[in-house]
Amino acid sequence: MTTTNKKHVSKYQDKHHKKFPKGTKGVWVNEKSDGKYQLTNEEISLPAAVIKQSAIDNNQQWMQHFANHHNVKLSPHGKTTMSPALFEQQLDAGAWGITIASAPHAEVAVEAGARNIMIANQLVGKANMAMVANLLATYDVTIYSCVDSTANAQQLNDFFASHNQTLHVLIEFGIEGGRCGCRTETEVHALAEFIAQCPALKLAGIEVYEGVIHGESAEQDIRDFLATTVKLTETLKEKALIEGTPIVTGAGSAWYDVVAESFAACQHLTPIIRPGCYLIHDTGIYQDAQSNVMKRAQTNQGYACELGGDLQSALEVWAYVLSRPEPNKAVIGLGKRDVAFDAGLPSVEHVYRNGEKRAIEGLTATAVMDQHMFMAVEEGCDLQVGDIIGFSTSHPCLTFDKWKYICVADEDHVVERFIETCF
Amino acid sequence: MTTTNKKHVSKYQDKHHKKFPKGTKGVWVNEKSDGKYQLTNEEISLPAAVIKQSAIDNNQQWMQHFANHHNVKLSPHGKTTMSPALFEQQLDAGAWGITIASAPHAEVAVEAGARNIMIANQLVGKANMAMVANLLATYDVTIYSCVDSTANAQQLNDFFASHNQTLHVLIEFGIEGGRCGCRTETEVHALAEFIAQCPALKLAGIEVYEGVIHGESAEQDIRDFLATTVKLTETLKEKALIEGTPIVTGAGSAWYDVVAESFAACQHLTPIIRPGCYLIHDTGIYQDAQSNVMKRAQTNQGYACELGGDLQSALEVWAYVLSRPEPNKAVIGLGKRDVAFDAGLPSVEHVYRNGEKRAIEGLTATAVMDQHMFMAVEEGCDLQVGDIIGFSTSHPCLTFDKWKYICVADEDHVVERFIETCF
Repeated sequence: MTTTNKKHVSKYQDKHHKKFPKGTKGVWVNEKSDGKYQLTNEEISLPAAVIKQSAIDNNQQWMQHFANHHNVKLSPHGKTTMSPALFEQQLDAGAWGITIASAPHAEVAVEAGARNIMIANQLVGKANMAMVANLLATYDVTIYSCVDSTANAQQLNDFFASHNQTLHVLIEFGIEGGRCGCRTETEVHALAEFIAQCPALKLAGIEVYEGVIHGESAEQDIRDFLATTVKLTETLKEKALIEGTPIVTGAGSAWYDVVAESFAACQHLTPIIRPGCYLIHDTGIYQDAQSNVMKRAQTNQGYACELGGDLQSALEVWAYVLSRPEPNKAVIGLGKRDVAFDAGLPSVEHVYRNGEKRAIEGLTATAVMDQHMFMAVEEGCDLQVGDIIGFSTSHPCLTFDKWKYICVADEDHVVERFIETCF
Repeated sequence: MTTTNKKHVSKYQDKHHKKFPKGTKGVWVNEKSDGKYQLTNEEISLPAAVIKQSAIDNNQQWMQHFANHHNVKLSPHGKTTMSPALFEQQLDAGAWGITIASAPHAEVAVEAGARNIMIANQLVGKANMAMVANLLATYDVTIYSCVDSTANAQQLNDFFASHNQTLHVLIEFGIEGGRCGCRTETEVHALAEFIAQCPALKLAGIEVYEGVIHGESAEQDIRDFLATTVKLTETLKEKALIEGTPIVTGAGSAWYDVVAESFAACQHLTPIIRPGCYLIHDTGIYQDAQSNVMKRAQTNQGYACELGGDLQSALEVWAYVLSRPEPNKAVIGLGKRDVAFDAGLPSVEHVYRNGEKRAIEGLTATAVMDQHMFMAVEEGCDLQVGDIIGFSTSHPCLTFDKWKYICVADEDHVVERFIETCF
């Protein structure tokens, strides 16, 4: 189909980042003429989610350099942040496209300026397909969707054929006990043959998510799985079941190094990695995953060590001490409504009182409710009602989706803009 | 302060409920001229959160009648839904006010038309106080905040005195091992004396949250705690530490019956109950709590049974079967991003295929990830990729806060409007 007369996508940055909204959880402020709001001076309503621009910049550059070094394309998983401003920043820094999880997410990625959009998931249902059809008709974009069944391939073909459109698809290859995906190479071949008979579908390659492989031999199992995936892609190409240069894509934020190394040699293919959490990072499960990346790099003389620096935790949630009802207990104005709680509770990073940093130690989050968090407080600790605590977090995805607006702060905790999330 | 020249609050309903937004998770549709969107015909992008209007109407009337019968005022906890349209409906049906958890929430309640707003939490921090001060200056409303420390009382007094305003406060009375709140009657008295010296604060009564009392003797312990609370309130009034008719308030959605019964005799006080989840209800933890309410009503000849009917689960999340990768496994396009997972996983209520209801049994949710849910599928079950499943949920608060827009459906699953959430 022709790409003429398609919309120009204006920069999201210009449309959405100029003003703090009033009355929105966590970013309410008394308007100041200089537009600078100091978190430590209580110029922003807390709790508030805050990202550090310097850490975002660091993480984005770090991962883009890592991908460039391995000659793999970076298609960051946007589901973590669903923030057009961050998508735009990732695209400007060299990302090939944006990966997302659903059709409504695809719309956000397209409107943020992505030209390649990978739905790393099955596209199921007429309204979801209609949304993708509208995007294809309106914008000059390529949208890839995963398929792992002839049922879904048939549904997609029926829909897009009736719209005189072609949808790019990737066959998802999975493992027994895993998530989606064909379980055997035979199934993949059969599905590829089926897709070849679907005039509205164009098979572009193979997609995997190695993050479902666990256990003591996970690294070797993942390497084996990736090697099989590459061979499978090559075989489908040899059989002329894939048009153009085949895509082979994998990688969450835990094993992107192994995926990049495994794909680095595949320059007859288009290798794409899709980490998402690296941009925000954390001090919990993704810090653990990244420390494993670094350990593997040391063992293998891998590039992650040569590259210098490391990912930094970019997200904090700031909140007040509401109550000190018992000597060893503090209640914080922060809850399941504000922060991820499925992979460890938040950790104290800073304490401020009346604008001054306080060296207060011995605080441990012990439980979280909808709007409150309990902290165990060590004997004699001078934590007071009204003190501000900045917490780092574990699992950025489930903190981001709690906020419509997230503050962007500099190193001095001054906020001049916010980013909008589009979950 | 004078209430002249304060803003008239226009009906939220008129401003916000006319049109489906495009490109918003879960409510995208191809626009239809009749404005009616049939969930079972795939006219709405899934996953989508859906509330049944009939169940909401039932629940609202049921609880308002329950409160009226006991001569207690109903101030529904709005934190569950944070939906102005639902606040408005609750106020129209006779609610005394809206209870919320934070200053930004208070703004939403005021703009939805509430005249009495109870912040069932400590109001801490200058930006939060400034938000309340702005509301008091702009609207003809009374805002109550909880205090449990002289530190917070001093901070509030300093702030509101500097704004020449008076803030209504309730002393929070709690229990050892609980959440916020003074731990002893002596502490409450001392705090009341302190507040009496604060010119910008007006002590309006006592607030408790009995939901932190657990254990085998929970019911009796709660009754004792409430009796102490009533006496404490009366004593503070006798000592002229409370101005006007004292408020005594308690009740989450689990023990509102016991609280209403305990407060029913206190007509020299203003007794207020604050359940929140009753409006949405569920098929999980709140169904369990409500069945305990009904059991207690049978034992005590309580009004919950006389009233007839019962609360109904009003919230569903609808999603597609994305994949059937193994004979006993289905992967659903629904995840932690879409539904509460902290109090049990969703339960299957309906299955539809090509617009027709299917009698499919033997499906059990076993795990949930960010964007996917696994279901165990019994041998021989005819569940197919593309089938639609409507799930009921447990813990409505943590499903509501995942959605900016929630579909409102009739009994035939036809959606004509959505409600906006303001988390």
